[in-house]
Amino acid sequence: MNIEYHLSDILNFLGAEASDAKDVLITGLASLENANRGDISFVANTRHAKSLAECNATAVIMPRGYENDYSGVCVFSKDPYLSYAKLSKWFDTAVKRPAGVHPTAILAGDATIGADVSLGPNVVIESEVLISDGCQIGANTFIGARSRVGANCLIESNVSIYHDVLIGDSVTIHSGAVIGSDGFGFAPNGEGGWQKIYQLGGVSIGDRVEIGACSTIDRGALDDTIIGDGVILDNHVMIAHNVRVGDNTAMAAFAGIAGSAKIGKNCFFAGDAACLGHLEVADNVQITARSYVTKSIKKSGSYSNGGLPLMESRKWRRNAVNFGKLAKIVKPVTDKELDG
Amino acid sequence: MNIEYHLSDILNFLGAEASDAKDVLITGLASLENANRGDISFVANTRHAKSLAECNATAVIMPRGYENDYSGVCVFSKDPYLSYAKLSKWFDTAVKRPAGVHPTAILAGDATIGADVSLGPNVVIESEVLISDGCQIGANTFIGARSRVGANCLIESNVSIYHDVLIGDSVTIHSGAVIGSDGFGFAPNGEGGWQKIYQLGGVSIGDRVEIGACSTIDRGALDDTIIGDGVILDNHVMIAHNVRVGDNTAMAAFAGIAGSAKIGKNCFFAGDAACLGHLEVADNVQITARSYVTKSIKKSGSYSNGGLPLMESRKWRRNAVNFGKLAKIVKPVTDKELDG
Amino acid sequence: MNIEYHLSDILNFLGAEASDAKDVLITGLASLENANRGDISFVANTRHAKSLAECNATAVIMPRGYENDYSGVCVFSKDPYLSYAKLSKWFDTAVKRPAGVHPTAILAGDATIGADVSLGPNVVIESEVLISDGCQIGANTFIGARSRVGANCLIESNVSIYHDVLIGDSVTIHSGAVIGSDGFGFAPNGEGGWQKIYQLGGVSIGDRVEIGACSTIDRGALDDTIIGDGVILDNHVMIAHNVRVGDNTAMAAFAGIAGSAKIGKNCFFAGDAACLGHLEVADNVQITARSYVTKSIKKSGSYSNGGLPLMESRKWRRNAVNFGKLAKIVKPVTDKELDG
Repeated sequence: MNIEYHLSDILNFLGAEASDAKDVLITGLASLENANRGDISFVANTRHAKSLAECNATAVIMPRGYENDYSGVCVFSKDPYLSYAKLSKWFDTAVKRPAGVHPTAILAGDATIGADVSLGPNVVIESEVLISDGCQIGANTFIGARSRVGANCLIESNVSIYHDVLIGDSVTIHSGAVIGSDGFGFAPNGEGGWQKIYQLGGVSIGDRVEIGACSTIDRGALDDTIIGDGVILDNHVMIAHNVRVGDNTAMAAFAGIAGSAKIGKNCFFAGDAACLGHLEVADNVQITARSYVTKSIKKSGSYSNGGLPLMESRKWRRNAVNFGKLAKIVKPVTDKELDG
Repeated sequence: MNIEYHLSDILNFLGAEASDAKDVLITGLASLENANRGDISFVANTRHAKSLAECNATAVIMPRGYENDYSGVCVFSKDPYLSYAKLSKWFDTAVKRPAGVHPTAILAGDATIGADVSLGPNVVIESEVLISDGCQIGANTFIGARSRVGANCLIESNVSIYHDVLIGDSVTIHSGAVIGSDGFGFAPNGEGGWQKIYQLGGVSIGDRVEIGACSTIDRGALDDTIIGDGVILDNHVMIAHNVRVGDNTAMAAFAGIAGSAKIGKNCFFAGDAACLGHLEVADNVQITARSYVTKSIKKSGSYSNGGLPLMESRKWRRNAVNFGKLAKIVKPVTDKELDG
Repeated sequence: MNIEYHLSDILNFLGAEASDAKDVLITGLASLENANRGDISFVANTRHAKSLAECNATAVIMPRGYENDYSGVCVFSKDPYLSYAKLSKWFDTAVKRPAGVHPTAILAGDATIGADVSLGPNVVIESEVLISDGCQIGANTFIGARSRVGANCLIESNVSIYHDVLIGDSVTIHSGAVIGSDGFGFAPNGEGGWQKIYQLGGVSIGDRVEIGACSTIDRGALDDTIIGDGVILDNHVMIAHNVRVGDNTAMAAFAGIAGSAKIGKNCFFAGDAACLGHLEVADNVQITARSYVTKSIKKSGSYSNGGLPLMESRKWRRNAVNFGKLAKIVKPVTDKELDG
């Protein structure tokens, strides 16, 4: 694909000034190390600024103060990383599928499809579904009865959306994701087995949410599972039934939130971080990689219980075998303390 | 959807008595806090009984002894949570697809389809497959050659079932699940690479099993991977090749059982709990969240090796850096002890 | 299925000698314990050799020296496990779909399909895709624009491959896997929310790679995510954007490599092992189960930070509550040390 932009248009879009009035052509976006002539690059971190001298990019987005280190066009930004993020869309190579319903899509007669919607091959849309304007629905995706998808959503291929799921505007859902599957609800049946609890709630997802590949969000047992606006979920994330996730909270891969937990706004769950069920986590809480919330957190901050020092396995085992003696050498714990 | 039941029918179904002979109409099922007029609710835990006074439900399922706390109709049950679980099916809003083969389903000529089966759009059924009476197979699901699905199974959309998989009666499989994929079997090829070991076994799944979204059960290397009756698996569960899981065992999200492990009956693996390969776990064993079985367990009970106390990350790091000194301060471990 | 081979053909294929010139018929491949008359079996480990006396197999692949323990035909191999692995393909019961494009497959006019390719039902192939000779693409699989699949690949059902993904020869991809989904890239937007960073790189996968069910490999932010030749990934593996994985590295289920990490050749990540972002791991490194790389590893060897001793939960809690006192009893850590 041949992409070509006038630098002046980029400056307008970013609201940025340049060190040079020359309106060069920009044909790519690249990191400082890999940029070639024609590319625009960016100083993501001023620690990287020392490589500016060797950078081959035609233009570089940078904070003021580094213009002497670089011989190309300097594009000034107070937040070059954010400017790069905004500009990245101009260089996206993902196919924007044309509006229209593929002849193999299967559409219930009472579904409502907005304007400028693209329904890919083999898409299945059940009864009373609403797909709002500007949505793109990828091949082989299923959307169950009465679910509603807001405007300008991008739902990739092989996504499964069950019945009675509400999705806001500008939501992206990646392949393999499952929204609205049954929560893991079973009652002991008194005979050693399990009685399934039918999951009567739905899922409600806000605006500008991103849901990664193979992530799952279960429907609520009685009420809805709720994902706030601006929430971003990486791949393999698990949101159990009745969970509430506050606006703009981010969760990296393998993060898991157990049933009925309530996570605040602007939280960050690092990779493989988790929260046990029925707990509450305040706003602005960070859970570090592989840590998990074992009691409610009322105060913003960073919390951990995972991440011991990496060492040679033989050394690790020497230490680990002694873990079971901590109670003896540090402080014996009475039954009363443990249960208290 | 308008759901309306006579309380008398509910009492009959549950085999329960009520505090009041009036045959009210019930239009919903809700928690004590969220119930409105018309709803039936339940006391899941007697700790919640104090909210009975403010509960707006028309009827509440409860143990005897709380009737003075509540002004509506009391429905008496020794196990209100189980009664709720049983009753939940009456309020399920999932679409029951009508029997029939969707015109876009692709069906091998020698496949056998029972009575009252619903095959959704784009379902693909290979040669010699058997789908028994009363099954519902969701859109875009694939079922490979010679696999057999028992009666009254619900297989959701976008499920992948490989060849030679045996599934019992009344099994539910959620979207994105994969049954019968190759076990992770490779032999070092003597040249630094890997020789694939073709996985010749199948998968055998009992009756009344539930398999969550994006969970995977690999086929056996030589013999079958076996899942007992009544097993319930949450989302993102991994069952490796040759594993055997005993009847009624439950596994929460991200639980993983490595190759050839044998898990007993009525076990519970909490979220992210696991078992290493080739081990045996007795019946009635609980593995707590994020713990994993490192040696065979012969005695029922609850076991852990995960779940350190959550603390502020800075404090965590102060403690964690000292982990590598445990062997020194507690008890040095000799090479002989470590290998023994 | 009736499989029947002459032992002489098996000996030729393996380049092996037998203890007996009789050209028996072999009808199955089984473990020592489960083998019946007609089967060929193998001594995977000389610890198992003692069961040779009771083995009912017609022939057993074994190292020299055990022929007196066994009354059937001995097939001699220096590496019986590798011989078994090679031979396993002869007994594979997976359906080899005939070459041809299923009438329901949807193929862009400018896609290129090689010789002897099987495209299953509902396969969707976008513009400018290349599928090389001998590939089998399973039902309901999606392959996005400009992606290229090398020769003799097996891509199972319900796989999602995004645009601009390069796949080498003889690659196997299991159901539910997602290749080329967006990396988890977002910049804080200065208003408490997130600005998506469009992911402009692709994914490049070498030859002879195996990718397990429900595993995900994200596309790069600017450059490609790269998987070397001979890499084997189990189910539920997560490879984030810009990661590089060296040749022949193996990763078990739930392994996760965070963004921009560079993993060497011939490494092994056990189940649930992980690596934080932007780190480098040397060749020939093993990370044990549930451990994760917190700093770059420059020297080959086995490393751990997970795997504490399993104990009864009550005893575990007694020890775990003391973890927060390690810094006191072992060695106080100053702020300077922690930040240093």
